[in-house]
Amino acid sequence: MALNLTQKIFKEHLVSGEIVAGKEVAIRIDQTLTQDATGTMAYLQFEALGLDRVKTELSVSYVDHNMLQTGFENADDHRYLQTVAARYGIVFSRPGNGICHQVHLERFGKPGKTLLGSDSHTPTNGGVGMIAIGAGGLDVALAMGGEAFHLSMPKVVQVKLTGRLQPFVSAKDVILELLRRLTVKGGVNRIFEYTGEGVLSLSVPERSTITNMGAELGATTSIFPSDERTREYLKAQGREKDYRAYAADPGASYDETVEIDLDTLEPLIAQPHSPDNVVKVRDIQGIPVSQVAIGSCTNSSFKDLMTISHLMKGKMVSPGVSLGFSPGSRQTLEMISQNGVLGNMITAGARLLESACGPCIGMGFAPPSGGVSVRTFNRNFEGRSGTKDAKVYLASPEVAAACAITGVITDPRDLGVKFEQIEIPSEYVLDDRMFIFPQADGKDVEIMRGPNIKPLPTRDRIASQIKGKALLKVGDNITTDHIMPAGAKVLPLRSNVPAISQYVFEAIDPTFPKRAKEEGGGFIIGGNNYGQGSSREHAALAPMYLGIRGVITKSFARIHLANLINFGILPLTFVNESDYDKIDAGDVLELETANLDKKPLTLKNVTKGISIPVTHALSSRDLDIVAAGGTLSYVKSRTA
Amino acid sequence: MALNLTQKIFKEHLVSGEIVAGKEVAIRIDQTLTQDATGTMAYLQFEALGLDRVKTELSVSYVDHNMLQTGFENADDHRYLQTVAARYGIVFSRPGNGICHQVHLERFGKPGKTLLGSDSHTPTNGGVGMIAIGAGGLDVALAMGGEAFHLSMPKVVQVKLTGRLQPFVSAKDVILELLRRLTVKGGVNRIFEYTGEGVLSLSVPERSTITNMGAELGATTSIFPSDERTREYLKAQGREKDYRAYAADPGASYDETVEIDLDTLEPLIAQPHSPDNVVKVRDIQGIPVSQVAIGSCTNSSFKDLMTISHLMKGKMVSPGVSLGFSPGSRQTLEMISQNGVLGNMITAGARLLESACGPCIGMGFAPPSGGVSVRTFNRNFEGRSGTKDAKVYLASPEVAAACAITGVITDPRDLGVKFEQIEIPSEYVLDDRMFIFPQADGKDVEIMRGPNIKPLPTRDRIASQIKGKALLKVGDNITTDHIMPAGAKVLPLRSNVPAISQYVFEAIDPTFPKRAKEEGGGFIIGGNNYGQGSSREHAALAPMYLGIRGVITKSFARIHLANLINFGILPLTFVNESDYDKIDAGDVLELETANLDKKPLTLKNVTKGISIPVTHALSSRDLDIVAAGGTLSYVKSRTA
Repeated sequence: MALNLTQKIFKEHLVSGEIVAGKEVAIRIDQTLTQDATGTMAYLQFEALGLDRVKTELSVSYVDHNMLQTGFENADDHRYLQTVAARYGIVFSRPGNGICHQVHLERFGKPGKTLLGSDSHTPTNGGVGMIAIGAGGLDVALAMGGEAFHLSMPKVVQVKLTGRLQPFVSAKDVILELLRRLTVKGGVNRIFEYTGEGVLSLSVPERSTITNMGAELGATTSIFPSDERTREYLKAQGREKDYRAYAADPGASYDETVEIDLDTLEPLIAQPHSPDNVVKVRDIQGIPVSQVAIGSCTNSSFKDLMTISHLMKGKMVSPGVSLGFSPGSRQTLEMISQNGVLGNMITAGARLLESACGPCIGMGFAPPSGGVSVRTFNRNFEGRSGTKDAKVYLASPEVAAACAITGVITDPRDLGVKFEQIEIPSEYVLDDRMFIFPQADGKDVEIMRGPNIKPLPTRDRIASQIKGKALLKVGDNITTDHIMPAGAKVLPLRSNVPAISQYVFEAIDPTFPKRAKEEGGGFIIGGNNYGQGSSREHAALAPMYLGIRGVITKSFARIHLANLINFGILPLTFVNESDYDKIDAGDVLELETANLDKKPLTLKNVTKGISIPVTHALSSRDLDIVAAGGTLSYVKSRTA
Repeated sequence: MALNLTQKIFKEHLVSGEIVAGKEVAIRIDQTLTQDATGTMAYLQFEALGLDRVKTELSVSYVDHNMLQTGFENADDHRYLQTVAARYGIVFSRPGNGICHQVHLERFGKPGKTLLGSDSHTPTNGGVGMIAIGAGGLDVALAMGGEAFHLSMPKVVQVKLTGRLQPFVSAKDVILELLRRLTVKGGVNRIFEYTGEGVLSLSVPERSTITNMGAELGATTSIFPSDERTREYLKAQGREKDYRAYAADPGASYDETVEIDLDTLEPLIAQPHSPDNVVKVRDIQGIPVSQVAIGSCTNSSFKDLMTISHLMKGKMVSPGVSLGFSPGSRQTLEMISQNGVLGNMITAGARLLESACGPCIGMGFAPPSGGVSVRTFNRNFEGRSGTKDAKVYLASPEVAAACAITGVITDPRDLGVKFEQIEIPSEYVLDDRMFIFPQADGKDVEIMRGPNIKPLPTRDRIASQIKGKALLKVGDNITTDHIMPAGAKVLPLRSNVPAISQYVFEAIDPTFPKRAKEEGGGFIIGGNNYGQGSSREHAALAPMYLGIRGVITKSFARIHLANLINFGILPLTFVNESDYDKIDAGDVLELETANLDKKPLTLKNVTKGISIPVTHALSSRDLDIVAAGGTLSYVKSRTA
């Protein structure tokens, strides 16, 4: 049978299940990556497994999120990550080495392999023809321990690219166009596989911009074939040996198909406060801009920075604009410092920020009150920038540069700059000295833990009946940023669950943590696409710590659903979406747990005296996990 | 009469008083500078004066402290500073343009002129032969309004330099040697004037490292003559027209003399937690280092960064060390990006931080718990780094580079690197486009204020009797960092006195603000050198807001004393130092205010039933200011 690329790689990694959309499937994981904000918890979890060494082909621990270091916590975490990596055979990427996805693509991504990362933008590496999936830290810890990764097999969507991008139109516009058409929930339970003649016109970094932001569609992952462009890229990275051609078989079939004609795309921009709120730049031009931010795992490749520098050369940042510039990796930074481009950016008035996630994760460079910030990033959720009433727009490097120069939202085609095709280099600067590769035996390494690194909280087995108040009722598209904020204040607490749980739902209802604790836990009621956005497992772990037993919604985002299961919280959906209206905040709910596999289940609204049918998409393994109080307890009891 | 250089410049700027040590003197101020952490308050105060435009030759508003921007506050402040500068005729230095003292030296410092800056390291510009004094923001606001600067004429100390620095010994070692000999209070009420044949061997940036850290001696300021080196520097900065030779008259006399033989100096290092805790590097070599930080207004000149790059070329930062690198100015950053040095540092594994004060003011890059951080900065007060139990050492760029490479405290002479004399350039990159120069008329400029910018608190006229508890009793050498902490959490609140006052004495007694408010104010009892360190006027303004009426100590640091007067707090000293023991925390104290000029005054300890003689060094003008409730009320009532 002719297989598409996704099916091929899944088949090569199949551990159990069927590669049929909607069926439970488990695949072997070749590589893992973590970043520091999710990594501390992931390694605490890995330690709890009691193993001696990771069992993957490659596991890399990056530091890119918590680099502001306004207190001891970040540096302590970095030291913990460095020592735990040396202990268990993990490659450690030192702070300053760059953003995990960008660096992984440069140095480790391999066609045909599987990568599980504790960051929602892990699909970035789909640009090099691998199945790269974002997951909670616990899933990554289990993968490092040799466990298969379980998921419900997604539908595979063919994205057929024709034509080629016109001057000043960018890979970013391809994914913004998809977001415009499909919305932030259009990719849920789907893998986007790019095909067609247009693919060959895109370099690997461009492909990775597209697969990166497939996360914003809610997709499980996105993937490009591995072809001549891939070979060229790997060769330029000194890794031609990692190349292997990979593509869908001729005549392979897909669950769905979308077509995009690259010829007709124009510069696009996502308006506040959602990545799918996309319009043509020309439709909103002239809005005054107070800040421009360039960087993030979406658009901080060598080519991106060269593009911006080309547009800004000899120009000056508009007096009303502050321009932040964060190169995606040390490799990129070295290259643009060698070829003079960094100097051009400094001359143009850019503020050179560290090679890290930085402002994209609310780590500094917050806009002024009510300010307009144009960013080359992937998310513009309200408040994520660090300024609650800021208006964040997402666009390509070309658009960002144009806005920085003019001080207003501007289509780069209107700048009057001659278009220049930026070629990707035939040789990148190769210097892996900011990685610390583990010794063959790490048993003698002392793991160093700062005082902010607290033990993992755990949950008991599920009771025969779960009962409690609907502590909070929220609407559609609630992000994990709503549930568990990030930013400079909260991120340093990622290895301290008692402390971080005090911020759960802070922007929606700051009384939530206190009420949850007082009530001894309860339920959360949500709308559609609950838990979209960042992969952060703390959006499940912290509510678990606060005693939440179940979340009942119209639908869930994939990674968050998995995280809820991992931490023993029951994720239920309404059989009839309209029953959402039959629960008010404060209602007491009750559910028997004896036969969770007999769907639909009956949720009693004790306050209103009614019964509401609810259901779930959990496999029997998932149900065992929830019953055990979470995956860690489940895996440990199974291996014991 | 033969005048020393200090007397010459004072004479040329004399408004009133006598240039005799200990006498009240007032001088005209030619230039002012502010930074953003003190500047917002300074400009709020300037606005309160009701003037139309600054009356100085030059006033510059820099942004270098609050650049992490973890919330809306910093960017709002920057916007306020930019608009208020345009309104009142002030040059605005955009964020990214560099550290105030470094940039001012490069572009504006002029031999023979006076500079008043709302930052304690303003004496940096003494390196170019000007009288550059740090003061509270209010003093700077008044100077911008054309008021003379009042001070008690300091003693002038001649520092006679002979010989020349040996390889790997640095200007930093000169000032560390002075700190070792004289301690952090050795410079109180003194101006250090550098003379002797050794002067000519030091470039302007080196001189500025020395005058910068004269602040750590508690000195009013430090000054070098303006000579051929000065001419060369100004010429290289395209400002030869600003050059004017300035030196002491032959045979000029000094109040005190210190001699330093540069030939015999060795690499020195200040140990935790005071800049005067100085030893030879070789005496403590081998201590493991977790972090090295290069930058700050002390050591971030082109020459400093070239020196480090020379030592680190082809080397790699030790695996246990994180190396932060903050160039002092955009000029420096441009030059090292053009000549490849920046690339070398990136290649060596440095983390490139913004061109700003950064870690020196606790703005990021905090060390791990208990970590050892070697810094080229000027202050190592406990907790200032952002990590309470970190151990911060201060040393030269040469020592810092050696520690970064080896991972332990290391004398650079033991590195085995061939010494190379770094020449300062004959031409700097000149590009003033990150300054916004004001229009001739700014009346139509709208000043933009964010929600964190609160009105100035004011104090009523003094009552006939001040009475209250001794709310807190502290020991010697209390810094303004103790009184009013800085760092990433507190600094953004500088334009919001009600909010920032909640952090007064946080590290010593976090109950202080609450108790002060509850008691309706009271007194603070201190030891020697109370209020040393940073010039921050919030260390007076916030206690004033909390109701503090008087501070009674064994002695005061100069700038803080002036700030207390400025905000209507009575600064008293014990006639007999041993009477310090006659007041316990909690005692009720009482003072009549009718005849404050009749010294000594009688302070009643009501609780103990005893009288304690106290005195002060306040002029009749100072007493009028305190009586009026502070300088702003005084000046306004006088002009009304």
